[in-house]
Amino acid sequence: MIKVGIVGGTGYTGVELLRLLAAHPQVELLAITSRADAGTPVSQMFPSLRGHVNLLFTHPDETRLEQCDLVFFATPNGIAMQQVRALLDAGVRVIDLAADFRLQDIATWEKWYGMTHACPDLVGEAVYGLPEVNRAQIRNARLIANPGCYPTAVQLGFLPLLEAGIIGADSLIADAKSGVSGAGRKAEIATLFSEASDNFKAYGVAGHRHLPEIRQGLARITGKPVGLTFVPHLTPAIRGIHATLYGKMAHETDLQALFEQRYANEPFVDVMPAGSHPETRSVRGANCCRIAVHRPQGGDTVVVLSVIDNLVKGAAGQAVQNMNIMFGLPETTALNNVPLLP
Amino acid sequence: MIKVGIVGGTGYTGVELLRLLAAHPQVELLAITSRADAGTPVSQMFPSLRGHVNLLFTHPDETRLEQCDLVFFATPNGIAMQQVRALLDAGVRVIDLAADFRLQDIATWEKWYGMTHACPDLVGEAVYGLPEVNRAQIRNARLIANPGCYPTAVQLGFLPLLEAGIIGADSLIADAKSGVSGAGRKAEIATLFSEASDNFKAYGVAGHRHLPEIRQGLARITGKPVGLTFVPHLTPAIRGIHATLYGKMAHETDLQALFEQRYANEPFVDVMPAGSHPETRSVRGANCCRIAVHRPQGGDTVVVLSVIDNLVKGAAGQAVQNMNIMFGLPETTALNNVPLLP
Amino acid sequence: MIKVGIVGGTGYTGVELLRLLAAHPQVELLAITSRADAGTPVSQMFPSLRGHVNLLFTHPDETRLEQCDLVFFATPNGIAMQQVRALLDAGVRVIDLAADFRLQDIATWEKWYGMTHACPDLVGEAVYGLPEVNRAQIRNARLIANPGCYPTAVQLGFLPLLEAGIIGADSLIADAKSGVSGAGRKAEIATLFSEASDNFKAYGVAGHRHLPEIRQGLARITGKPVGLTFVPHLTPAIRGIHATLYGKMAHETDLQALFEQRYANEPFVDVMPAGSHPETRSVRGANCCRIAVHRPQGGDTVVVLSVIDNLVKGAAGQAVQNMNIMFGLPETTALNNVPLLP
Amino acid sequence: MIKVGIVGGTGYTGVELLRLLAAHPQVELLAITSRADAGTPVSQMFPSLRGHVNLLFTHPDETRLEQCDLVFFATPNGIAMQQVRALLDAGVRVIDLAADFRLQDIATWEKWYGMTHACPDLVGEAVYGLPEVNRAQIRNARLIANPGCYPTAVQLGFLPLLEAGIIGADSLIADAKSGVSGAGRKAEIATLFSEASDNFKAYGVAGHRHLPEIRQGLARITGKPVGLTFVPHLTPAIRGIHATLYGKMAHETDLQALFEQRYANEPFVDVMPAGSHPETRSVRGANCCRIAVHRPQGGDTVVVLSVIDNLVKGAAGQAVQNMNIMFGLPETTALNNVPLLP
Repeated sequence: MIKVGIVGGTGYTGVELLRLLAAHPQVELLAITSRADAGTPVSQMFPSLRGHVNLLFTHPDETRLEQCDLVFFATPNGIAMQQVRALLDAGVRVIDLAADFRLQDIATWEKWYGMTHACPDLVGEAVYGLPEVNRAQIRNARLIANPGCYPTAVQLGFLPLLEAGIIGADSLIADAKSGVSGAGRKAEIATLFSEASDNFKAYGVAGHRHLPEIRQGLARITGKPVGLTFVPHLTPAIRGIHATLYGKMAHETDLQALFEQRYANEPFVDVMPAGSHPETRSVRGANCCRIAVHRPQGGDTVVVLSVIDNLVKGAAGQAVQNMNIMFGLPETTALNNVPLLP
Repeated sequence: MIKVGIVGGTGYTGVELLRLLAAHPQVELLAITSRADAGTPVSQMFPSLRGHVNLLFTHPDETRLEQCDLVFFATPNGIAMQQVRALLDAGVRVIDLAADFRLQDIATWEKWYGMTHACPDLVGEAVYGLPEVNRAQIRNARLIANPGCYPTAVQLGFLPLLEAGIIGADSLIADAKSGVSGAGRKAEIATLFSEASDNFKAYGVAGHRHLPEIRQGLARITGKPVGLTFVPHLTPAIRGIHATLYGKMAHETDLQALFEQRYANEPFVDVMPAGSHPETRSVRGANCCRIAVHRPQGGDTVVVLSVIDNLVKGAAGQAVQNMNIMFGLPETTALNNVPLLP
Repeated sequence: MIKVGIVGGTGYTGVELLRLLAAHPQVELLAITSRADAGTPVSQMFPSLRGHVNLLFTHPDETRLEQCDLVFFATPNGIAMQQVRALLDAGVRVIDLAADFRLQDIATWEKWYGMTHACPDLVGEAVYGLPEVNRAQIRNARLIANPGCYPTAVQLGFLPLLEAGIIGADSLIADAKSGVSGAGRKAEIATLFSEASDNFKAYGVAGHRHLPEIRQGLARITGKPVGLTFVPHLTPAIRGIHATLYGKMAHETDLQALFEQRYANEPFVDVMPAGSHPETRSVRGANCCRIAVHRPQGGDTVVVLSVIDNLVKGAAGQAVQNMNIMFGLPETTALNNVPLLP
Repeated sequence: MIKVGIVGGTGYTGVELLRLLAAHPQVELLAITSRADAGTPVSQMFPSLRGHVNLLFTHPDETRLEQCDLVFFATPNGIAMQQVRALLDAGVRVIDLAADFRLQDIATWEKWYGMTHACPDLVGEAVYGLPEVNRAQIRNARLIANPGCYPTAVQLGFLPLLEAGIIGADSLIADAKSGVSGAGRKAEIATLFSEASDNFKAYGVAGHRHLPEIRQGLARITGKPVGLTFVPHLTPAIRGIHATLYGKMAHETDLQALFEQRYANEPFVDVMPAGSHPETRSVRGANCCRIAVHRPQGGDTVVVLSVIDNLVKGAAGQAVQNMNIMFGLPETTALNNVPLLP
């Protein structure tokens, strides 16, 4: 059994981790911390967990996380970097679901996140936890930077095209739409039901923190900087990201075959039949990215449609997938549930 | 392995049965029929099932359902009664998710459903599949009438009070609210997104088919006819039923203790702590009924709040629960998933 | 022209007042205050008002409200009672959309609102602004207590029955459902999109502040205390209240005729044809209460369905209706827009 | 008074026309036809119109539309072209809200709409009813082709850039999102609440009928064919279109000033302040297009955000705007209502 701790379990990625881990046959959940809600039963805050999780939130200062084999950080940005070194020193492996270790360039990170990084040396060690790209390194990693939700959907969509050099990399467009849970479980007016329901809007057009993360990931593939315009939008759904990706073909190829071959052995990437339009609900609650590739009117623009559940393949599910890889378990352990539709 | 067939699998109870059965370790799914969609892969109609269900819909006339141990009918009302006798004669057990065998009084059934019943003799044999009431009879039944969604939520809410004679039975009120999936996967204007979204309404106040079913169930408890006003409403959610039940106290008792004791050994009924307000999302995707009992301002009106997922405890999940009982499996097999929240 | 000021215009009743007043031919909007947002253009906070309202929010301390003919308070409870006396002394008439002057019994008010009332003497003068009951008194009032949203829907539904003594008043039930905007424009987790969407729940079963307000209103009709159980629910719609009301018939009558006669001359109460089920969207954005009365299966339980838009007939629209009455204008001035459907 | 008739009033553009025309001081509504619902009161189908529209639907064969000054066709594609000639011959002016007269190239029209055009000669006479481009021609037109919803949002967004030659026209991208009412009031499974809610998807990537309409409109501006990739999506909102437009800068300019100057005199196009993100709800129910223009990270990609209410500026509102122009009325007559927010 893997002894697991969770730091910061009162947000949506926290409750989603609990949902997945409660059904994991190789996990023993030791502790889940919350500074604000220490002493509260987890199932009081999240009644969906009644009968499944019997822990209380504990105060981080009174929780002996060094007894864990693995600790997940489901905290706001800037928390994990304060605590990771001590855990690693104690032999605990760490998966950070926040952004502290996602950007290798410290200056870029500090600019976008508005903080001084607490442990730049550990950034270099951290492995970016996108299994479809980094599976081998994840296996032995001590510290995983779990990818962001938009970056997961966008990178998996562009990956086959850029690896094969089929599209130019200087003028990519990612028009992405997210359900509201992507904004987290925070008391804010902009994400109230009466504000976000029956509405649609773009946000962060001038710049979103996931932009440098996506650029970094795509540049690793192409070996040089990419030109990317990234426009995120808010759609009135709870879960789901839909990325609509645009690129210009530089070389002819069978796009459908390219995608099918690239992901033939990936358990969590589903290349849909030619002509498909994947729906976000088709992955609701599941650790799955469904992709379709189009070439409208046979022109030179490639359109990729990529959908994930932002809380699963875009967060907690991918974290469990990384855990499975790190601990030598079958990668699909506890991640093979059928999406909830309708 | 239980060899299972499904008749009529293109509706919401059908896809929900498939979601649950795909994860059931003791089930081998032999066939799923659809007159209109024979030849279509199930996963083409429901992409959420890609990788989980590889069957094609088959034409009912070309499907050898008599090879099954158990057949589920997820058909419109009036279909199962045409086919059940042949299956029973072939030694196949049957669970009907529609209403054909729910009402013991044939005349009542024919009045509310507007059809002549095809096999009145089998109605008498059919067991009403509410395990919290009929577990023993379910075990040996050949034919199960799976309860309706409203009747499940309402009966489980009133049950402890009526069994103990705590409230009068002559003037009960059930004000019930259902998500739109309760109306089924049918092309109709009234349940279009643009009609049902951002809206709330009552319907069927003059009379709803679940009224006689609920009355029958409650009368079995009290031993005499009950007076019940039942008002269903449509709420803009996909899944979920919330029944708000009102009764007049006839005798003093500790209501909380009464409910907790009645359901102490029930795996799928969760009595919430005193003062709770169960939310439909707390059971989303799960075979669970959560109940809270209130006595506002200490008066003589008892208010019970009872929530289920209409497609799970109100349909497909309860059907699988009945199957587990019928075949001697642990009752929670394949039904222990954590609800999807948010 | 009526010179109008609004105190506290950043909530939903505030922006709704602005929407209605911007189209009012006899209103000159002098000022709208906000302590937190002074200096911000109103149309920056609410882009829907661009081109319609050119004011800036001003600080209450720097706003000369005594120059107004009428001031609306769209503030949280407890604010208006601090400021009303000075305005009245300056000859300004006041409509309070909050609850400060709704309950005539000071002790009851202080118990439910948890505050000491600042001006109990003015409570006696305040007129409860339900025109269908108090039109004559409203005409000459200096101070109007604008009714709550639930109380409006519930009182208008019970009114004809209780006035005529058709139902008993000792055991009324009001099962009411509200859209989320009823909770206001406040940063709170419980009303986030990801919490309130695709969900349904009751709340405040033990006691809600609108209970004593409804009881007071109904007791005025019957001349003695009424027995009322009131259960509010949250439904995932932005606007709309649907009250489902239950009473026991004490005397036979033609219910449909009773309702039609009672409201024959009311411009904003629409008695639907017999057998109707009014939908909340049928009054979306309009100052209208639609009502249907049923007697299921011809029994002795009367069921009334009453719908309003909580922000219009349940708040800002009713306030403008009261203003029209107070200033001798045609009652429907600026209130005759067609509901927005779909 | 303008005598107005409506052909085909049972869809969403029909009821929206009725909402707007009911408040129009210069319109006398003579008749509204429906083959299927002849004899039904309009307000029975749409209770929101109770008290505002007292007409019954009449059978088209029994309706003397030639008595009208103006007839709106709110019919499916292919109906107006059968009836327009007779009306024009009788001196009636016509606004077609469907697509029969939108494409000047008959072969293109017949390919995309799968029908033989019934009156190609009238297509040449028809004026494309986008006032911001064709105001002068609209004034004297007998026959108006009212633009599609997507084409309105997309053309108004690209217009200033293409007129001024600021972006290249060979590689435009329009990533557009529509609320579900855009699919019309038709009984179809794909637009059921339980299918379209809590979901997001693209559709028609291979080709959508609005693509040639947009291309035609943009080519009129540039004087030569444009390269455009158009990807429509379905978002779970009732109303609203959000077009996110991408182009490559060919020449430097002050983008904000360009847009503000182009639309300075347009009553229904609102250029938002620099850095804005217009929300669809900010135009809910109003005949308004709000636009923001961005240049992310100062690069050479221009991003335009353009929102409309698909049923108003994208259909019925624009039709009334055209009517106002045609009959010499102030263009904003009956179109100046404040959007409904929240």
